[in-house]
Amino acid sequence: MAKNNVIIKNGVRFEVAKYLKKVAPKCTKVVIITDNNVFMLYEADISASLKNAGINVCTFVMEAGEQHKNIQTYEAMINFVADAKLTREDVIIALGGGVVGDLAGFVAATYMRGIKVIQMPTTLLACIDSSIGGKTGFDLPQGKNLIGAFHQPSAILIDLETLKTLPKEEFQNGLGEGIKYAFLIGNEMIELLKEGLEDGNLLDFVTRCVDYKLDIVNKDEKESGLRKLLNLGHTLGHAIEKESNYTIPHGLAVTKGTLCVANASVNYGKLQKQAYLDAIEICKKYDLDYTISYDIKSLIKNIQMDKKMHADGDISFVDIEDLGKCVIRTVSIKELEEYLTK
Amino acid sequence: MAKNNVIIKNGVRFEVAKYLKKVAPKCTKVVIITDNNVFMLYEADISASLKNAGINVCTFVMEAGEQHKNIQTYEAMINFVADAKLTREDVIIALGGGVVGDLAGFVAATYMRGIKVIQMPTTLLACIDSSIGGKTGFDLPQGKNLIGAFHQPSAILIDLETLKTLPKEEFQNGLGEGIKYAFLIGNEMIELLKEGLEDGNLLDFVTRCVDYKLDIVNKDEKESGLRKLLNLGHTLGHAIEKESNYTIPHGLAVTKGTLCVANASVNYGKLQKQAYLDAIEICKKYDLDYTISYDIKSLIKNIQMDKKMHADGDISFVDIEDLGKCVIRTVSIKELEEYLTK
Repeated sequence: MAKNNVIIKNGVRFEVAKYLKKVAPKCTKVVIITDNNVFMLYEADISASLKNAGINVCTFVMEAGEQHKNIQTYEAMINFVADAKLTREDVIIALGGGVVGDLAGFVAATYMRGIKVIQMPTTLLACIDSSIGGKTGFDLPQGKNLIGAFHQPSAILIDLETLKTLPKEEFQNGLGEGIKYAFLIGNEMIELLKEGLEDGNLLDFVTRCVDYKLDIVNKDEKESGLRKLLNLGHTLGHAIEKESNYTIPHGLAVTKGTLCVANASVNYGKLQKQAYLDAIEICKKYDLDYTISYDIKSLIKNIQMDKKMHADGDISFVDIEDLGKCVIRTVSIKELEEYLTK
Repeated sequence: MAKNNVIIKNGVRFEVAKYLKKVAPKCTKVVIITDNNVFMLYEADISASLKNAGINVCTFVMEAGEQHKNIQTYEAMINFVADAKLTREDVIIALGGGVVGDLAGFVAATYMRGIKVIQMPTTLLACIDSSIGGKTGFDLPQGKNLIGAFHQPSAILIDLETLKTLPKEEFQNGLGEGIKYAFLIGNEMIELLKEGLEDGNLLDFVTRCVDYKLDIVNKDEKESGLRKLLNLGHTLGHAIEKESNYTIPHGLAVTKGTLCVANASVNYGKLQKQAYLDAIEICKKYDLDYTISYDIKSLIKNIQMDKKMHADGDISFVDIEDLGKCVIRTVSIKELEEYLTK
């Protein structure tokens, strides 16, 4: 998607109608999909902006939480959208974190074989990661995100003010993916994180992450190659989430996974130890628990069900060669286990 | 999709492994999705072909019937696929009619954000229409095909022998769409249908329909323009299906819809009356009931929920200008009603 359809700006939630008209001029009805936490905080601002512009608004409120990212919630949402009689010209707005964005995006992807969606991420994690790139879907009991589709948003509206009301754990969760970006992008990100994410730094940090991810997604939307880089820390991260029965949030699991890979890279004489120590320092500064309390062998078993597995049993795995230089490797489960446990 | 990935051939069901290897060389596991009728007749031939080539096969059997084209069946199917641990390199084979093809196609579209599907249509309707073009999905109580995605099959294998076991009504159902193609393609199709669809003629008839549809779909996959032509007879047809509570099969409903449009076209001095009379003769020859026993106003009401409706209340409607010459028109509900009831 075009960069000028991503707006990162304080108070953009009061101008939703303006950006909606730009990307969906024929839209007359909007379904806002959100969760009960975000609904109380911001839904009124957005629906007011739309109603003032003469657009009909219906709002679906789901219960917050990853455990609701399932087929029951999807079914309730898409029935709501059908009852609201949305047409192909109309728009769904996903207002919330990753769970809301993934589900609402998939509803938009599959209602009438695809209608427009505008992502309005309200968590740091969703701002820098899940709202960008068009991955949508939900979980099955057999694994995370096993059902899904690629469906690019027509616009992404990021209101940094909404991050001010985030609970501490949610901000930490976003920082978890932030540490992944630091290893992907390089030293300037480490410096930003060490300095602290107040005001201007937060805008800078979010913008760098968004730009980096958009560049990659625009080159490889369907993750046939390059885009796999964004899975740094995710192979192990997903397994950690599952092993914890999803009590460890996604971003934090990715930090754990990323630092485990960084540690292995240092052990193999690739990554400079200082970068690893900087990352640890950042984790401590923001009170992120980067340790892994699970047996690596049981995590590896979990990885075998991971969707990145090839038919021949090998998996795609993102390795750190140096700060700002990551590579995609295809390895067997055994090789991965050896690499991570040296 | 490329024409050389569509195989129309007697006995192709015994050679499935050969064509599968061509389009999915890394595939080691296949889930065949079929219904209880087709399972008894042909599943063994296909799974034998695959097993002999060293491919693992699991088969999901759904209960036959449009009433099962719903989210419950979808959920059961995709859970089955996840339990079978299919990877991104593996393949789903849709063996059956339109219901199986649409559901299995949507499972393939949404499992891990999309894996390969091979369509093996076993009804005339699926052979000439629903297996081609990548439309997948299922029904909601609010309307037919309200949930769906575009997902092109990697191959379409049409075994004309499987049409020999079709119940008469199923063959008639396919012919219903065949009459639509006759108006789209032109006089040579009318001649074929008048002559009869024995042996060589059946191959000729199916091949012409497939070629015509593939050409259009390859030019306009997502139905933003040209592809809408294929909806000739469908605006009314869908409403007839719904009004009959789906007791009137799809193809027959399309014939009724098409002939209603043809009649209007004759009334407005566009289509030659002879073409309309030929179509009636064909309906009689094959014992197709082309009459409409519902009130047109109540059908029009049903159309308002149809997915082809624009946000401003207008709908896309395919009109017949002459035999082999159809056009897409955008009309209001009122204009449509007037046109069809002159």
